Amino acid sequence: MGESLNGLKRTIMCGEVRESNISEKITVMGWVQRKRNLGSLVFVDLRDRTGLLQVVFGEEINKEAFEKADLVKSEYCIAVTGEVIKRESPNKNLPTGMVELKGESIKILSESETPPIYIKENLDASENIRLKYRYLDLRRPDMQKILMIRHKAGKVVRDYLDENGFLEMETPMLTKSTPEGARDYLVPSRNYPGMFYALPQSPQIFKQLLMVSGYDKYFQIVKCFRDEDLRANRQPEFTQIDLEMSFVEMEDIIALNEGLLKRVFKEVIDVDVQLPIKRMPYAEAMNKYGSDKPDLRFGMEIQNITEAVRGTDFAVFKGAIENGGSVRAIVAKNCADMGRKKIDKLGEFVKTYKAKGLAWIAYKEGEIKSPIAKFFSEEDMAKLLNAAGAEVGDLVLIVADVDSVVLQSLGALRLELAKELGILEGNKEFNFVWITEFPMFEYDEEEKRFVALHHPFTAPMDEDLELLETDPGRARAKAYDIVLNGEELGGGSIRIHDTNLQQRIFNLLGFTDESAWERFGFLLEAFKYGPPPHGGLAYGLDRMVMFLAGTDNIKDVITFPKNQNAYCPMSEAPNVVDKKQLIDLGIEVSKVEK
Amino acid sequence: MGESLNGLKRTIMCGEVRESNISEKITVMGWVQRKRNLGSLVFVDLRDRTGLLQVVFGEEINKEAFEKADLVKSEYCIAVTGEVIKRESPNKNLPTGMVELKGESIKILSESETPPIYIKENLDASENIRLKYRYLDLRRPDMQKILMIRHKAGKVVRDYLDENGFLEMETPMLTKSTPEGARDYLVPSRNYPGMFYALPQSPQIFKQLLMVSGYDKYFQIVKCFRDEDLRANRQPEFTQIDLEMSFVEMEDIIALNEGLLKRVFKEVIDVDVQLPIKRMPYAEAMNKYGSDKPDLRFGMEIQNITEAVRGTDFAVFKGAIENGGSVRAIVAKNCADMGRKKIDKLGEFVKTYKAKGLAWIAYKEGEIKSPIAKFFSEEDMAKLLNAAGAEVGDLVLIVADVDSVVLQSLGALRLELAKELGILEGNKEFNFVWITEFPMFEYDEEEKRFVALHHPFTAPMDEDLELLETDPGRARAKAYDIVLNGEELGGGSIRIHDTNLQQRIFNLLGFTDESAWERFGFLLEAFKYGPPPHGGLAYGLDRMVMFLAGTDNIKDVITFPKNQNAYCPMSEAPNVVDKKQLIDLGIEVSKVEK
Repeated sequence: MGESLNGLKRTIMCGEVRESNISEKITVMGWVQRKRNLGSLVFVDLRDRTGLLQVVFGEEINKEAFEKADLVKSEYCIAVTGEVIKRESPNKNLPTGMVELKGESIKILSESETPPIYIKENLDASENIRLKYRYLDLRRPDMQKILMIRHKAGKVVRDYLDENGFLEMETPMLTKSTPEGARDYLVPSRNYPGMFYALPQSPQIFKQLLMVSGYDKYFQIVKCFRDEDLRANRQPEFTQIDLEMSFVEMEDIIALNEGLLKRVFKEVIDVDVQLPIKRMPYAEAMNKYGSDKPDLRFGMEIQNITEAVRGTDFAVFKGAIENGGSVRAIVAKNCADMGRKKIDKLGEFVKTYKAKGLAWIAYKEGEIKSPIAKFFSEEDMAKLLNAAGAEVGDLVLIVADVDSVVLQSLGALRLELAKELGILEGNKEFNFVWITEFPMFEYDEEEKRFVALHHPFTAPMDEDLELLETDPGRARAKAYDIVLNGEELGGGSIRIHDTNLQQRIFNLLGFTDESAWERFGFLLEAFKYGPPPHGGLAYGLDRMVMFLAGTDNIKDVITFPKNQNAYCPMSEAPNVVDKKQLIDLGIEVSKVEK
Repeated sequence: MGESLNGLKRTIMCGEVRESNISEKITVMGWVQRKRNLGSLVFVDLRDRTGLLQVVFGEEINKEAFEKADLVKSEYCIAVTGEVIKRESPNKNLPTGMVELKGESIKILSESETPPIYIKENLDASENIRLKYRYLDLRRPDMQKILMIRHKAGKVVRDYLDENGFLEMETPMLTKSTPEGARDYLVPSRNYPGMFYALPQSPQIFKQLLMVSGYDKYFQIVKCFRDEDLRANRQPEFTQIDLEMSFVEMEDIIALNEGLLKRVFKEVIDVDVQLPIKRMPYAEAMNKYGSDKPDLRFGMEIQNITEAVRGTDFAVFKGAIENGGSVRAIVAKNCADMGRKKIDKLGEFVKTYKAKGLAWIAYKEGEIKSPIAKFFSEEDMAKLLNAAGAEVGDLVLIVADVDSVVLQSLGALRLELAKELGILEGNKEFNFVWITEFPMFEYDEEEKRFVALHHPFTAPMDEDLELLETDPGRARAKAYDIVLNGEELGGGSIRIHDTNLQQRIFNLLGFTDESAWERFGFLLEAFKYGPPPHGGLAYGLDRMVMFLAGTDNIKDVITFPKNQNAYCPMSEAPNVVDKKQLIDLGIEVSKVEK
């Protein structure tokens, strides 16, 4: 069976029917969520993307429709025409719960086999089954809500940027592979056998070229690609909101983007973002939170207790300090009674961040419990607790090592403890922060040279220009990340538009003229012809939608995502191809694994 | 030199300054279009994406600025601050021509070498140079105007579809290669060596799946890919406005899209599209214009003169008719005096469309000039001319052959003649037509079987259902193309949602269950679970923008296009890649050409 509409028109969506529609004749179309046969009556809950509507069929109402309605099963696609009536026993949980539809006629538009997964909210099916039957998984109301949020977010972003003079411009998908950065997805060329296009990791170079071309304000919501091993919440293809502006400085870009965030969160989920968004220099974020994307929804800052323990006897602290490292702590409020097993687990946890161990002090009323207490006089212990800001009832957790290890491990421990202690449970806050003043360079211990932290076109801060040659490790960049609840939502920088300055940076990074040319040739060529001052920012749209939708699974915000192996169980991509296709491209498969 | 902005803010764009701004202090930023040194004064035409503004520097105005301004050359990027004054000798050709800016201070933001192409409208440089220095070519005001039109078109489409309840949804770029259709671009998989993704030729299957998933109304402005030899106005990557709707029939889709076209042409270029757009069945288009995308801006329809010449002696006509073919003509008004050479050229022209020759009759006052006149009695000739609708002064051009050859060659000849005669010169009309009632199938002479004209999910017209088995060649589809001035702007169809009907179509196309499954597996699987009636349409955005911008070169509407060999002279893509990248992917290059 599969009836045609034959001119039948839907007059309203299921979820929109209200008491104001009572006595109207309507036609709705959708899927059978549930059918109940109560003998003389058949009830059908009909679902479309707006919600559910109860339809009642009866011999008294229309015999033919009643009999046909009794044939339907879950997920049949049907059309029903009839009068809206007041419901005898209202369902207050449903926006349409005050009314029901008298089923006077029904068309069975198509039948359905029993679906392999339930179409309901908060489905608890295996990811593989959900991905294989993604078209059914996408019928679930919670998935539909998320994808409607995604549409809305894109629309608001476009409206806002259009109003602010931005032009949406498409950049190429078939581009040139660049030797560094993440691994490119390659596309063999048929016209030039042996040569390859690369799918873009970002439109970075093209958007800078558009600034050179005088387009002034560019944006694009665009797919980007990275062929990396997939960690959680990474997909091989992901979507960026990418923007760039000319004749601006950092303050202009921040102001524009604060307006954007305020608008998106307000219009999409009715959340007020307080402006201006607070700012924190990179160094402060690292020192207080051990991270350049600090979660500021709770405190538990890292405390530097190096001075308080300097000169004491504990060899581990002593050694760290002598090696130029530090001793730092976080304080778990009112956790002095935490069990030994739990504390040991935290010790194991910090080891995954290269810390050699975790010292702890349980500061109880009239009693200090700690394996390291014996190394400290009462006075020194009091000094330590005071420096850590600990109060009676608290648990102090301490790492001593080189700074990078101390900060990273305590930063991770802070988040782990917050999870463990349920500190953020029920927290609905959206805590934004701009991280600024990033270092220009990191020192690469293996290559024994500085490498760019962002990319080599990032401009240094004016006040740090002289450090470029004298102390490059201390030079800060005009770079900024926008961080929300401990996740990086986006980031960008002001770019260098002065060729002399660019040359200094290249020299510093150890590029020869040739090697710089090989990597960035056409952008450097373009910069010979009057590049404007410019800068920009890129957001991860997938992550933004995750926040807006309140999900922590990136697969929830993408229509047809890949699994952890970059495989799609539904379409079975990637897959083998015809030998002839490979011959056309001049390539051969040299390695096949099962 | 490359000065920083250091807090200097642009207050207005160059092209926006008007008499109302006189005596205001403004800051503008842009590129030097032209500099003239008149001794005591230096004039600079400053350009940004909004237009030009004349700036005057003088020793009297500000000596330092005057001297610095004299250093600038074409395409230097500068910022100028000063007072807006009335211009002594206004330039009426420029929107800013009533005013000029007193250059009180200037910053040279960056210098420029002499650009290899001129930055001016209607540039006459070679395509290769323009593509190599695309970032300079894109500075040209006419290119900027086009890309602003493109942005605007996308914005209006999105606004309209959003208002009409459509959700913009992204579908995957890394999909599965399908064995038929155009050639896919392939992407080797690193996780599954020997396997490949394909870049999508269109999101067809995914958008149908989204209808199965209940999203009701989907759209996307999306890149699509075809690895075909590039004819003029084809690019390896192109952009579609792709949409699909559930619970609708053809009339709903046409109405929605007429609204869309009206809105786009009105808002982007202020052209009124008259609704409803006229419609023409495929058969009529073929018979009158020899094309399924007829240019209706002029007449010169094809006339069937078979009956008028039946029984006459001319062997070519006779043979064609006896073979089941036809004799048809087009009439070139007032062209009876066309020279023999020109007519011979037209004869050569139709041969490229497989016509064996072109008969012609010059119908002059009191005289018939024609190589075939001798085969016709005066009466028969009069009958022929009458059937063709020729009048004194006209030239009649005739092809006799099987219908397909006659129609195709006369259809092409009609367009060629219109070009030759300048019939459309200065014509500003936008002549839209819906072509409907396409055949379901074409007979493939080689494979001796019917193949789908659109795709095998296209629904047949209800009144032709019974023809599917009895006379499939005559069965018409619920398919429609929107044609503008002889170009296909978009096309679509109502899809089959009835699995029994789908089975009949597959049988007819000679698919076994297995072969159908191999090609369309996951869509067929999805259709087991209550697919809604649905249909859609896809536009070529690039072509739409070509119409809106009035250009006939697709490269004009794309930021960074490829050349005819799918090569980008600017980025030098495609290119060689590191051996290591290929090893990672498990592929080898088996053929290398220079």
